[in-house]
This record gives sequence, structure tokens and C-alpha cells, in this order.
Amino acid sequence: MINGERKIAAPLRWGMIGGGRTGQVGYKHRTGALRDGTYRLVAGAFDLDAKRGRDFGTNLGVDPDRCYDDVQALIAGEADREDGVQVVSVATPNFTHFPITKALLEAGIHVICEKPLFFTVAECDEIAALAAERNLIVGVTYGFTGHPLVRQMAAMIASGVLGEIRIVDLQYTHGFNAGDDTNASEAQKWRTDPAKSGPTFVLGDIGTHLFYLSEVVLPDLRIERLLCDRKAFIPSRAPLEDNATVLMHYDNGARGHLWVSSVDTGNMGSQRYRFVGSKASVEWSDSRPDQLLYQVQGEPEQILHHGMPYLEPESLAVDRMGALHTEGLGDSWANIYLWIAQAIDAKRRGDEAFLQTHRYPGMQAGTEGVRWLENCVRSAKAGGTWVDYQ
Amino acid sequence: MINGERKIAAPLRWGMIGGGRTGQVGYKHRTGALRDGTYRLVAGAFDLDAKRGRDFGTNLGVDPDRCYDDVQALIAGEADREDGVQVVSVATPNFTHFPITKALLEAGIHVICEKPLFFTVAECDEIAALAAERNLIVGVTYGFTGHPLVRQMAAMIASGVLGEIRIVDLQYTHGFNAGDDTNASEAQKWRTDPAKSGPTFVLGDIGTHLFYLSEVVLPDLRIERLLCDRKAFIPSRAPLEDNATVLMHYDNGARGHLWVSSVDTGNMGSQRYRFVGSKASVEWSDSRPDQLLYQVQGEPEQILHHGMPYLEPESLAVDRMGALHTEGLGDSWANIYLWIAQAIDAKRRGDEAFLQTHRYPGMQAGTEGVRWLENCVRSAKAGGTWVDYQ
Amino acid sequence: MINGERKIAAPLRWGMIGGGRTGQVGYKHRTGALRDGTYRLVAGAFDLDAKRGRDFGTNLGVDPDRCYDDVQALIAGEADREDGVQVVSVATPNFTHFPITKALLEAGIHVICEKPLFFTVAECDEIAALAAERNLIVGVTYGFTGHPLVRQMAAMIASGVLGEIRIVDLQYTHGFNAGDDTNASEAQKWRTDPAKSGPTFVLGDIGTHLFYLSEVVLPDLRIERLLCDRKAFIPSRAPLEDNATVLMHYDNGARGHLWVSSVDTGNMGSQRYRFVGSKASVEWSDSRPDQLLYQVQGEPEQILHHGMPYLEPESLAVDRMGALHTEGLGDSWANIYLWIAQAIDAKRRGDEAFLQTHRYPGMQAGTEGVRWLENCVRSAKAGGTWVDYQ
Amino acid sequence: MINGERKIAAPLRWGMIGGGRTGQVGYKHRTGALRDGTYRLVAGAFDLDAKRGRDFGTNLGVDPDRCYDDVQALIAGEADREDGVQVVSVATPNFTHFPITKALLEAGIHVICEKPLFFTVAECDEIAALAAERNLIVGVTYGFTGHPLVRQMAAMIASGVLGEIRIVDLQYTHGFNAGDDTNASEAQKWRTDPAKSGPTFVLGDIGTHLFYLSEVVLPDLRIERLLCDRKAFIPSRAPLEDNATVLMHYDNGARGHLWVSSVDTGNMGSQRYRFVGSKASVEWSDSRPDQLLYQVQGEPEQILHHGMPYLEPESLAVDRMGALHTEGLGDSWANIYLWIAQAIDAKRRGDEAFLQTHRYPGMQAGTEGVRWLENCVRSAKAGGTWVDYQ
Repeated sequence: MINGERKIAAPLRWGMIGGGRTGQVGYKHRTGALRDGTYRLVAGAFDLDAKRGRDFGTNLGVDPDRCYDDVQALIAGEADREDGVQVVSVATPNFTHFPITKALLEAGIHVICEKPLFFTVAECDEIAALAAERNLIVGVTYGFTGHPLVRQMAAMIASGVLGEIRIVDLQYTHGFNAGDDTNASEAQKWRTDPAKSGPTFVLGDIGTHLFYLSEVVLPDLRIERLLCDRKAFIPSRAPLEDNATVLMHYDNGARGHLWVSSVDTGNMGSQRYRFVGSKASVEWSDSRPDQLLYQVQGEPEQILHHGMPYLEPESLAVDRMGALHTEGLGDSWANIYLWIAQAIDAKRRGDEAFLQTHRYPGMQAGTEGVRWLENCVRSAKAGGTWVDYQ
Repeated sequence: MINGERKIAAPLRWGMIGGGRTGQVGYKHRTGALRDGTYRLVAGAFDLDAKRGRDFGTNLGVDPDRCYDDVQALIAGEADREDGVQVVSVATPNFTHFPITKALLEAGIHVICEKPLFFTVAECDEIAALAAERNLIVGVTYGFTGHPLVRQMAAMIASGVLGEIRIVDLQYTHGFNAGDDTNASEAQKWRTDPAKSGPTFVLGDIGTHLFYLSEVVLPDLRIERLLCDRKAFIPSRAPLEDNATVLMHYDNGARGHLWVSSVDTGNMGSQRYRFVGSKASVEWSDSRPDQLLYQVQGEPEQILHHGMPYLEPESLAVDRMGALHTEGLGDSWANIYLWIAQAIDAKRRGDEAFLQTHRYPGMQAGTEGVRWLENCVRSAKAGGTWVDYQ
Repeated sequence: MINGERKIAAPLRWGMIGGGRTGQVGYKHRTGALRDGTYRLVAGAFDLDAKRGRDFGTNLGVDPDRCYDDVQALIAGEADREDGVQVVSVATPNFTHFPITKALLEAGIHVICEKPLFFTVAECDEIAALAAERNLIVGVTYGFTGHPLVRQMAAMIASGVLGEIRIVDLQYTHGFNAGDDTNASEAQKWRTDPAKSGPTFVLGDIGTHLFYLSEVVLPDLRIERLLCDRKAFIPSRAPLEDNATVLMHYDNGARGHLWVSSVDTGNMGSQRYRFVGSKASVEWSDSRPDQLLYQVQGEPEQILHHGMPYLEPESLAVDRMGALHTEGLGDSWANIYLWIAQAIDAKRRGDEAFLQTHRYPGMQAGTEGVRWLENCVRSAKAGGTWVDYQ
Repeated sequence: MINGERKIAAPLRWGMIGGGRTGQVGYKHRTGALRDGTYRLVAGAFDLDAKRGRDFGTNLGVDPDRCYDDVQALIAGEADREDGVQVVSVATPNFTHFPITKALLEAGIHVICEKPLFFTVAECDEIAALAAERNLIVGVTYGFTGHPLVRQMAAMIASGVLGEIRIVDLQYTHGFNAGDDTNASEAQKWRTDPAKSGPTFVLGDIGTHLFYLSEVVLPDLRIERLLCDRKAFIPSRAPLEDNATVLMHYDNGARGHLWVSSVDTGNMGSQRYRFVGSKASVEWSDSRPDQLLYQVQGEPEQILHHGMPYLEPESLAVDRMGALHTEGLGDSWANIYLWIAQAIDAKRRGDEAFLQTHRYPGMQAGTEGVRWLENCVRSAKAGGTWVDYQ
């Protein structure tokens, strides 16, 4: 159980690009990073509007001198300091991920980046090589995978209690874009502009959460072929999609289906993960995050609760609130941030043995997410037909 | 509200083929037919084992002389009687539906048949012509569509409160065939034998429920193209399937996905219907049959309860238990049987005006179900590719 | 599993007093009685308005000559017939239960009566003696206790898997009388008039359901003392109550609390039964009637589904729809009616051995319900203080 | 919405007494205090075992010199420092709350204390006078009341949409003490020792959460009389209780019932708050913390989700994760800690106007909780009879 004891030698000096007052996502990074004493927020370029960003950063407790106009200024300003930032989180629109990450890595700074990581696998490979060369970590904020019951599902499947995996059923749908309001807000506008969002909208925005979580839970399965049927119900979003269904054939013969939508009108919580095995199934949804449904055919259904002693040690080790008390999404982000901090710490100490077995959403996870998007788009562009997974 | 008052002039003299003691489905027919005084069970050939069937029929209160060895004996025995059967229900394995229905119609007897109706659309067309010629009704027991909240969904969509329909999400999955036990029981064995089950297993067995209910709710939508990815996770079931996913493109641009499975290990109730419109969505599941979820984007979710005055008149008209009190599947079957009785009664009276607007699962519903299966199989055989709907 | 085979030698000739077109409850009796071929509706005095009652009865398929003006006429009319009624159900306001039941028993007719049975235990004792003398059955329609999962709870507690029972938590609350509309309908008006409803409103109307079900599940526990705090939130209902809380101390040291209300504004389904033992708990609610929650401390929660082979034989024996398919309230009523029919049949055959062990809501159940109400009222009149149970 | 911007001029220098590695509750304090940059953990006496406490504190990032042996050492050590602690949280067994709080206040240090605050109202009054004299704040960690939907309930009731409040139904029950294992752990042992726990066990431990939340939501209601029926199902816990039911009569005629238990075997989440008005009801449970049930009689039930624009501004102002994303218990604690920080900051600035309207669980809330416990115990000792509220 996580009780606030620091897992690394000293707090990491941390900065942010983006995540300002008017965005949605910045607070998730901060509440994830700051509750364990693992990170200290010391610098940032929080806003396109530099004055507003400085004002905001000051309110966050950052020295005004270290509230920068942009990433270049941050790199320049921090370079000279003995106590300069060691790691920077990137919470900006998709099209900026690549240049900002590249610049930070070149400056010797570890990076934690929003998903989808970049536009192409080629970009991922370039950054992976750069990070390896500079001995730096790139983390990706797949925030839901920090939940103790995600670890529980992974442990149960690894132990074989589900038998052979047959069916993967994934859904993350909401209706916040059901109206014809593409451009209603700055926070939304860029998401349906291919130049800024990349080759997808909802597939990248929320579908990658589904995909990465399934990879965490099913590390041994490989997709062999895939079919993606996507559509923009609000025409101005085309060629990007606000709704998509993806069918997947895995190398063990399993079948997967995934539905992702931001036009699932009125839906308020369908993020749902179901893994069906030959002996049993597990299902988890963030609408009842503290519960894991475990179903053995012919026996009563079981509901496992987070924090209970009957869970696997891997799950209990990352529990924060304890049984009876709800783990929120922030607690899950806090685990992700902690795991990335441990990776950075190990990298700085040169502890490659630790990194061999340490699980966290890193460069590879980010790359695989982009690869999956590339395959989805290739299928969709071919008319929603089957494509071999590349 | 239905209160037991007879909706037709006199009870129909009713018989059954199949539905004996060892089968699962016979009681659903009887409990559906017998609670309103609309049908009287007067004859039957309840079992392949004629002696067992006679014993069983007698226990049901049928005159032993009218417990027959088989359908031919029943037709012969009843033909001479002034009080001979007027309508017979067919609750036998799929491959017998066609010859039994044909024989009954030729003998001037109305038919109520289990789904899937027949193997091919050609057979359906032949029977439809025969029924029309003989002025007889063929009803199909799509048992779930009798629920008052299904009528409510249809009425809400017809009224336009959902806006344009965009997404249809259908699921009927259970795990009762997850084990490698294809031949465990007589009741199960024929279902995976193409000669007896027809061209599908779960698509016909439970998928047709999903399809027909969606047609009731969305009478104006037409499928333009369809893709069916099916598989037998227990290999001995091949070429039939125990799991299938179907994608559908509708003529208004809507997207549909349907998942049907009997290897969804441990699942105990996922029959789920979700209809997403541009303004609102509705969702109904038989795991909480008394509730209809109604979601308007940006407003609190609403839960509508059966029997409440705020529902549409079409829904209240077919409610049996009243608000606060659970409608069971038997109540839904009772409505289906009542509606079919009303159709038979109108046909006998020659009231074609009534039949023009009367909604019940009849010959056309059965035909469309078989047509949908044919399209699914055509897609599956082509490797799970898109096919134009024929 | 119940499949419609008749459990008694011949159908009982059945009549109804009350239960007409405008009432709420008549259909529950009819749908309960008529689905198994156990009863045939042959006579009735369905309505205070005799003409309307005759019209209604005719629509139910009753011979117009056997649609009577009132109970006296029914008794007189049926007395001479060889095929006269054998059992009559009483679905009239509370104050008529006693005289009608008495008259029927004196005429040699078995009775099935609505709850609360009578106004006083003294009346119950008088009727019990009369019934015993005439060798007749009095059944009481505690409709929920026919559900297979109620039998399951009883069987589990009897087997000891819950350990020593410690806590009984019972709730049946709705909000249909939350408005100041006491006299809105004829169907409601008499319920808050002490001369017609008896000494209670909601305690008798719905509280007796809770009490009887707890007796079925906990046959070995006795109440030692009780406290009842009742109130009429709509003042015109005083001295009767529209809301009450009852605390109970049982002879084994267990504690009970029961909440009953018709002013629980907006509540649409809280009929809830929870039994807490030293080792485990069970909980059942009619808002999810197909599921039984079974909780062993320190283990995953379990959800048991009706009709599944892992249930106790007592539960499976009375299941009607089978696993995956919802049992409605009507199915539960059908079991109650069947069990009463079996009691009547045994009484007619003189099979007292069968009656010794046959469980059904009969005269004793009715009496104990009235006794409980008397104790509640005595406590309430004393200012909501503890009273020894008498 | 809370986004991490500091609500006070500078972080408070914060310390802890107790909350060490082996206890359950310390992390809740830390995760609540440390995520907004409002508090900095600079000192502590974390453990009865001083060495273990120092080791633990160091792991939390506290200077080893400021990890003290006990509260006296902390007060002495911090007194001389310019940067000495300004506020200290007390997460120790109940019997130490009073002396520790008194000592801290006398040293000029603000206090945040676990519930139940003290043993008697007399102690509360003494501390309240001391705090007033020294111009210091005493906060109490009623952790659940920081949830945005609790604010929503309070705002809705204040606005009158529920009409007159009639019924208050409160439940917080679990089964973690169902076994006969009173002394199983150090963390549990003191809780059933009256010398250390005070006059109650579960009433104080979890019942005060229910009571305070009801006070937040219903600030205008006063209890007139109360009845408490308590029991120790594990006899060694007597005279304290592991289960209790409390009935309350409010001054407006409303009725309350509250059930609190640690022997509700197997229960994993029943913390439930239901407020019934003449027009509508609201219900919230921490088993589905993101949802608020809102029921208007005769209309569809409504489910309100946290973070949605249709909520009251008071609720949205304290939301942290935004709609679709679960607020955990830690987020609620963070709000409580923030509100107490704002009170301390205002007190330090002498801003009594702010304090007049600022809502947070402070000295008065703590006192009222103890007063409620005193009334419960007085009733229980009188045999579970009604007592006038004093």
C-alpha cells in the first residue's frame, strides 16, 4: 500500500509545458505528481499567453522567474541553473508533442507526454533513439492504468485463472461532442484539425487508453489483423472521426472489439474493459472503479473490491486509499507519475536491471499506441477493410 | 394496462408440437399463452417419445386422445373434430420448422413458430405465399419484444425525441457453451449441427432477437451493408459459430454493432439494446427490465420505470404488473401471444384493416430475420468482409 | 423447475370477490392463478357496481349467470351447483375481509385473502377455529414470498452458512402518497380511513410483506420486544401512518429494523431484505429480483442468479423461467397460488401429513401478520416506546 | 473547479502527530494536505516508537531533526524556529486528542484533529474557549463532506427543490469487525477500550461522519429527541457497541434513522445518505460517488453526475477531476484540508468576515458531533429509550 513514503532518493525537479488555467488536463498532471513528494514543481511554460501563464504558474507556487514564455525559453533558462528542471511534462495539443519532446530531450531533460504520443511511428522511432542516446526516459500518461484493479486483472490473467483468452471487449464512449459544436472552445477546436490533432480524433484521444490498458493486461497477445470502421457524424470533423469501431484478430485466435466515440449522446461513464477466457472472465469499468467483476462459468458471479487482502500482491502494492474508500482517477495518475519517477531515478542511477522489469507507460507504450493508430487509419482509409497488422 | 379482459371473442383452441418436459422452451409458450384466457390448450404432440409426450400432455390437462405421436397424427386427429385446434405452436429444433409449418398451414391451421423461422429466405417466401393463399397467420416468438419498455423506445424514437439515429449497439451474450461440451445434452446437440440448426448457431439462436427488436424500434432504417466476423471457439461447432460480431451500415448513415455469443464465460445477463440519436439515447437491458435509461446530452440521466404515467400510451397499454412490480419475461411472451391471437382473430373475421396497423411478430418479421442471417453468413464465408445487404 | 404440469388432480373451480376493472390488484390474482391450469375462474362478484362487475366478469370469460352482485349472492348462487366454486379469492378493502371470509367458510368454500388479513388477532383466532372446524384452507397473498431466491435465502440460513443471525434489515418504501392527495382515488381513499383500513395504513399495506418474508426466511427467530415510531406526514391520514420505523429485538439477541413508507418521495423500488449473520450475509431486492447478494466477510462478494444449478434444490424446484430469464412478480404470485392450491387439494384429500410440512402463506401466516401489527400499534400509541411482544 | 492554484498566500508549515507507517489513516491526511501546495510537511511525531517514527518521517521528506519523539518534543523543538510549524494534524487514538490539542493550542499552533474530537462536550467547550482566546483554528477531518455532490445536496435543499424535509435515512456499515477478533491488531485494540476510545466505538468512529454530513446538508434542522439502540455482538466489546440504530425526531417534524455497524458481515460500501422532501428526494452513496440520485415523485428518476454544468456553482467550485472522471475519497479530503487552510489563513490575517461565511468542519462541528454522541449514549444507557436532545 502506498503511504506517502518516498520511493526515490530525492524529489525530481519538475516542470510543465501547457496545462494552464483554461485547459482541462493540467490539474490531472499536478495532482498526480505532487501528492507523494516525488516531484517538486519548479518551472513551467503553462500557457500560450505568456503573461497569463506566468500569473498562473505563480499561483501554483512557481518562482515567477521560472515561469517561461515557451519551451525554448524554459530550456534556456533552466540550462544554467544548478537546480534546473530534471523532467518536464508536456500537456499541449498533439502536433506540438514531437518538437517539444525532441527539444527537451536534446537539452537533457526527461519527458512525460500526453497521449497520443506523436503522429507517426517514424517520429516515435526517432525520439526513442534520441532518448536512448541521451539516457533519458519518455513517459506517457495513460492515466487509467495506474488503478490497482488493472494490476489485479493483469495478475489474474498471468496466473492462468481465466484460461485461454478468447474475447477482448473494450469501450470508451461519451457524448460531449454530440452537438454540432466542433469549434465551440479553443480546448476542443484543434482536436478535429488533422494538422494539429494528427491522423485521428477519438481513436487517439481516448481509444489509445483502451488499447494500452489491454496491452498491460494482455502482454502476450499480438494483433494479427485489424479492421477499423470510423465516421464523423458531425461532417466538419472529417476526415477525422468522432466514432469508430475496431475489430481485432489476435495471434492466439482471440477476437477483439473496441468502440470509441465522443458522440455517444448522454453517455456518462462507459469506459469498460472485458476480458473473456475459456474458464472465466474479468470486467472493470471506471463507473464503478472500486469493483472488479470476476465470472467463472457456472458459479456465482464475484465482485472483488480494491484494497482487500484476497487480491494479488501486485494490486495491493499500489493501492492508496484502502478497502472501503474510493480510489479516484487522481490516485491512478499518481501511480503512473510515481512509476515514471522510479524509471527516471533508475535511469539516473544507471540501474538498468531495475528498468528491465519495471512496468510503466514509457517510450515503447507510446510507440505501440501510435502504431495501432496507424493500422486503424490504414484500414479506415481502405474502406474499413481488414489489414494485416504492421 | 392489461387486466385479463379477453381481447378476442372466444379463446383460441391451441396445440403444441414439441415443448415437452425435457425441453427448455415449452413452458415459455404455455405461460405466455395461458394467462389471459386467450388460448385453451386442447391438443399436442409434445415429445419425440410419444408415450412420454402423452403422459406429459395429460399432466398439462390435455385430453389423452388429443396427445398425438407427431404432427401428422395431430393434423389427422384434429381434422375431423368440430372443436379441432385452430392454432399450433412449433417448439421443435430448427430443421423441423419448415415441414411442420407447411403441413399445418396446408391443414388450415394457424402457426406460431420459434425463431429462427426457417433456413432460407426462399423457404420463407414459399410459406408466406402459402399462408396468404390459405388466409392464415404465422407468428414468430420473439419473446422480448413484448416488454412495455420496448414499446416505449419505439414510441420515443418515432416521436423524434432522440433526433436522427446515429448508433445502434446490440449485445446478447452468455457463457453457457463456454465449455467443450457441445454434445452434453440432447437439447443442445442439434444446435451446432448444420443439418438441424441451419446455417448458424448463436446468430440464429439469440442474434435474431437482437435484430428483430432493433427492427421494432427502428422501423424506418434499412441496412445497406453488413460485415459478420464469426468463429467457433469450440472447434467441433464449426462451420457454425459460438461467437459473432456484426457491423452494419444503415441507409441514413447510422452505424450498428452487434455482439452475440454463447462463450462469453460467466456472463449472466447481457442482453442490451442501445440506440443513440443526435439529441438523446435510450438503453434497455433485460438485467434491469423495469428500467429504461434515457440520456439527453448535457442533462442528468433519466431512468424511466415501466407502468408510470409519464410513459407513452403505447407502453402503458401493454403493461401487466403496474409500476413498482417487476414484469418478467413471461409477461412479455404473454403480450406476444396476445398480439398473435388478435391477428388470428382478425384474420378469421376478415378484418384486414386491423391487420394493416396491428404490430406483432409475424411472417414478415420471421422472413427478415432469416434474410439477415443469410447476409451474415454470406459475409462470414467471404472472410468477414463487407457485403451489400440483399 | 415448474413447467406447467398440474400438481393437483383437477383444476380448482375458482371465484373472486372484488378485483374488478378499476382496482389495481385483481390482475395479480388472475395472472397468478391462471397460468398453470390449477384454477379455473368460474364465478365472481367483481365490483361494487354489479352491472360493471358482470360486464367485466364476462370479459374474463365467466358465465354471466355466475357474475354475482355480491358475496351473498355468489354463495347462494353457487351453493346449488354441482360445479360450484371451491375456492374464492378476496381482493376487497380490508374491513370486508373478515365478514366475507367468514361467510365463505361457513358456506364450505376455501378462501384466499389479501393482506392484512383482518383487523385483530381475535378475529384471526375466530376464523382459524372456523376453518379448522369446516376443514377449509385460508390462504394469504404475500405475493413476493413465491420468488425462488426467497426460498434460496431460507435454505441457506437453515443450512447454517450465515452462522448466527445478528441483524435483520427490512425496507419497503415508495412515494406514491407523498402528495397531499389522500382522497384522490376511490382505490386509495379507504386505505387511510381507520374504519375501513383497520389500525394501520402502510404497516398493514406493505409492512406485512416485509414481516412475513422475514418469517419465511427466519422461522426459528421470535420477536421479544418491539418499538414502532409511526407518523402521518399528510395530517389527514392520522391517526393512521404513511411512514413508520420498527425496531425489533429477537430472542437470540438479533436486532431488526424495518422501514415502511408511502411518502418516500420518488423512490421506485426499495423493497429490500438483508439478513446479517456472524459468518455471512444475504440481501435480496425486488429491484434486481434475479440476483441474490451473498457476502462472506473477507471474501469477494457473490451474486447468485436464479435458476442456476448451484442453488439449493428448494429454490430450483419453484423456478419458472430458468436462468438468464427474468422471473416477474406474477411468477411469484403463481407460486403462492400453486402452493395454496396444493394445500386445498391436500385438505380435500384429507392428507394432513402433506400439510404438516407444506409451506404456504396460510391462516397462521395471516394471524402472525395481524399480531405484529397489533404490537406495532400498541408501541406507537404508547409514544413509540418499547413493548414486550405479545 | 479546483486546478491547483493556491488559495492562500503561502503554504502552511505543517506537522503531524501520529499517522505513522503502521496506521491506516495517516496517508489520508497527507494525500489530502499535499496535493495543492497549501501545506508543506515540515515536522512530526509520527509514531509511538520514536525511532520508527523518525525513519518514517525521513522517508516522507521531513528533516530528521524535526522528526520528534512526541508532541511535547515537537512543541519544544519548533518553538524556537522562525520556520516552526503553524498547524499540526492529530491522527492518534481518541483519548489523546484532548491533551494533544490543548498542548498545541497553548503553544500557538493551529490543530486539525481526527473525529470523534474529544470524549465530552465539556472538553470541547474548554478547547473552544482556548482556541478563541489564542485566535487559533481547530479543524476536524470529516473527510467525506468535501465531495462536490455533498455540496450539491446542500445547495439543492437550501434552494427548496426538495420541499419540506420529511425523512433522513443514514447508513454507514461494514463488516470488518464481524469476527471475534477485537484484539487482532494494535490499530484496532484501543477502539473498544472505553478508556482509550471514549464512550462509543462505531457511533464515534463512523457514526459521526453520518451525523456531520447530515448537518452540512440540513443546517436548519435541529434534533428534538433521539433514541439509540446499541449492542456489542462481540461481547468483549461491551460496554461499547459494534452496532447501533439511532432514531431522531427533528424540530420540523422530520424523522431520521441512522444505522452504523462494523459487524454488517461482508458489506463493502454502504455509506448512504438519503434526504426525503415533500417534493423530491436526493440520495448519495460512496459506492457510486460520482452520481447523485434525484427523485421527483411521478417523474423519471434523475442521476446527476459530478462536474456537469447543470450542477450548482457551489458544487462545481470544489470539483477536482471534472465530469467523466472519478473523484476519490482523497479528493474529498483535499477539499477539507483546503477549507481548513483557508480558515487558518483568514484567522492569521484577522479576516473574521471571511470566517463568518466560510464553511469547513471546525470546532463547532467537532463539538456538535460529541454532543450527538453524548445524547446517543444517554439514550442507550437508559435502555434505548427516547431522550430529549440536550
